[in-house]
Amino acid sequence: MSCRDPTDLTSEVSELLGALRRPSAMVRSRVEQALDAKTKPPGSLGRLEELAARYAGIRHDELPEPPRFGIVVAAADHGVARRSVSAYPAEVTSQMIANIAAGGAAISVLAREVGARVLVVDAGSGSGEVAPGVIDVRRRRGSGDISREPAMSVEEALRLILVGADLADRLIADGCTAIALGEMGIGNSTVAAALTAALSGAEPGAVVGRGTGVDDDGLARKREAVTLALGRLEDATINDPLALLAEIGGLEIAVLVGVALRAGARRTAVLLDGYISTAAALVAVALVPDLRLCLIASHRSREPGHSIALQWLQADPLLDLQLRLGEGSGAALAMPLISAAVRILREMATFESAGVSTGS
Amino acid sequence: MSCRDPTDLTSEVSELLGALRRPSAMVRSRVEQALDAKTKPPGSLGRLEELAARYAGIRHDELPEPPRFGIVVAAADHGVARRSVSAYPAEVTSQMIANIAAGGAAISVLAREVGARVLVVDAGSGSGEVAPGVIDVRRRRGSGDISREPAMSVEEALRLILVGADLADRLIADGCTAIALGEMGIGNSTVAAALTAALSGAEPGAVVGRGTGVDDDGLARKREAVTLALGRLEDATINDPLALLAEIGGLEIAVLVGVALRAGARRTAVLLDGYISTAAALVAVALVPDLRLCLIASHRSREPGHSIALQWLQADPLLDLQLRLGEGSGAALAMPLISAAVRILREMATFESAGVSTGS
Repeated sequence: MSCRDPTDLTSEVSELLGALRRPSAMVRSRVEQALDAKTKPPGSLGRLEELAARYAGIRHDELPEPPRFGIVVAAADHGVARRSVSAYPAEVTSQMIANIAAGGAAISVLAREVGARVLVVDAGSGSGEVAPGVIDVRRRRGSGDISREPAMSVEEALRLILVGADLADRLIADGCTAIALGEMGIGNSTVAAALTAALSGAEPGAVVGRGTGVDDDGLARKREAVTLALGRLEDATINDPLALLAEIGGLEIAVLVGVALRAGARRTAVLLDGYISTAAALVAVALVPDLRLCLIASHRSREPGHSIALQWLQADPLLDLQLRLGEGSGAALAMPLISAAVRILREMATFESAGVSTGS
Repeated sequence: MSCRDPTDLTSEVSELLGALRRPSAMVRSRVEQALDAKTKPPGSLGRLEELAARYAGIRHDELPEPPRFGIVVAAADHGVARRSVSAYPAEVTSQMIANIAAGGAAISVLAREVGARVLVVDAGSGSGEVAPGVIDVRRRRGSGDISREPAMSVEEALRLILVGADLADRLIADGCTAIALGEMGIGNSTVAAALTAALSGAEPGAVVGRGTGVDDDGLARKREAVTLALGRLEDATINDPLALLAEIGGLEIAVLVGVALRAGARRTAVLLDGYISTAAALVAVALVPDLRLCLIASHRSREPGHSIALQWLQADPLLDLQLRLGEGSGAALAMPLISAAVRILREMATFESAGVSTGS
């Protein structure tokens, strides 16, 4: 990917932050009216109607084409994993990147099922070489241990944000109109918890969950790591989302921040997945508050901190299937609902066209 | 459809009631084990894993083919609609039957989106003739007003149950492995409320909702109609589901009871939709309790009585999208989740096959 000097990085990211295309409230309202004329009691398709209106507003198009979906699965290792905060060893990150690219992971299967294009990007795994089909953008093997050091330099965060922006551009060039944020990284639910606590003000105890399935001791280690990470932050850092991302974020999370920002700049819906992808969205929305309007929350994870992050975003997820996998799996499961919502808008008859009597 | 004499009807329905194929607990348990070997933390796909295991158990097949979906949309008019219990005039039933068959209704659009086969059956609308593409099985135009008379004779209920069984057979012959219960009928949320109250023991106030959108006066009329209907029932009727169906049911509901019973007899999953289709399932499960194991609850309707009916069935729905439309629309929206669950089971790599390290 791109090779820019630090000054260029800063100015390119500044440009990205100023480029948001706010969804059209007028399109949204017209779609709501159009849906009320369809042959059904007003509002009887519930959240599907909201979804059609929201998506149309993001697209600035009263009669959008059926969506085409893309997924960026960004992966990296995390220094904090050395504190045994996961039920799996760090090598699983690289192994799963290869599995995703080879088509055997949950997200591979679900993406095939819904016809979504997948880009797998290695933003910093610890493996020697990457598997075929993986986009390798690594400058370092894993982030720093956020409980005692910065995850990455601000320069690296900026670079990875622009990598993410380029990946979004690539999917949009391929016709994608809605892009899901997927991730893989042993240790990253600890990082998501730290970011969620820092941005929402919630206590470490409230944002830390069992992730891949740690036991009580693992849970205590996660809580301690988050507490230490938060303890290192100065107020100025908490109020500077880029500095915060560099300090207590993750390499794959930086990529996803860039994906979300560029999607929002290009009338492209951003589909959240679980806790980690939503933590990336928190950073992106802290940078550009109205980006919130371009997000579609796909599901509520079993991770308790995810609900806190969603609430901070004022996002009400479509699904609640007790998932806790990540990779973009929940977002892929929500894609058919978005397609269905758009088809309802495009294809349903009106009371007038179908000759159906209206209600009292 | 078939023309049988009353004795034949009784013996054919008796045979149907004895024909249930119970789902295989062994297949279910083997699928749960197979899912634990896939490259994901155990249980991390949450309800999707339950769904794969449940569907495989119903099919008696540890590695089922991706499901093929059918939908029976049964429609009829209701005498109780003369009490102004709906926001729409009764003529809308016939108009919507035509709209569904012509492809303009919500269920038409959603069925196309998921590739489901739809059978539209007129079990008793008030219209003179039916639209092209509609299966006409009418012997009467609308049911009796349940607040003061039986909805239909027991003989008519038996006949319509066998009509439903034949429709299920037709879909199964076409390859369907999961059949959704859809319906249309102005006034039928009042009938669903009466059935739900009679079978669950809930009070009329708890099972009556706004349906298509009645105002407070309409709600009071619905509650009164349900109270009157329940007041007509003898204890013996409440304990005889066929008599109950004839007394306070609906013509389209009788068809759906037959669809569910035959599907359960043929290793075919039964997808519930909203309140009315679930009321049909209550009757079917009252007749054959283990049929409950063949049901998949697709969504939780905004109608308050639906939650009572689901609880009686011990069914936890997949979606909660604030729908209140019927037609099978919520079931169609849940179909991609079932497909996804089966593909996960079929296509995901195992830790061993993908060379991924297992957890601690």
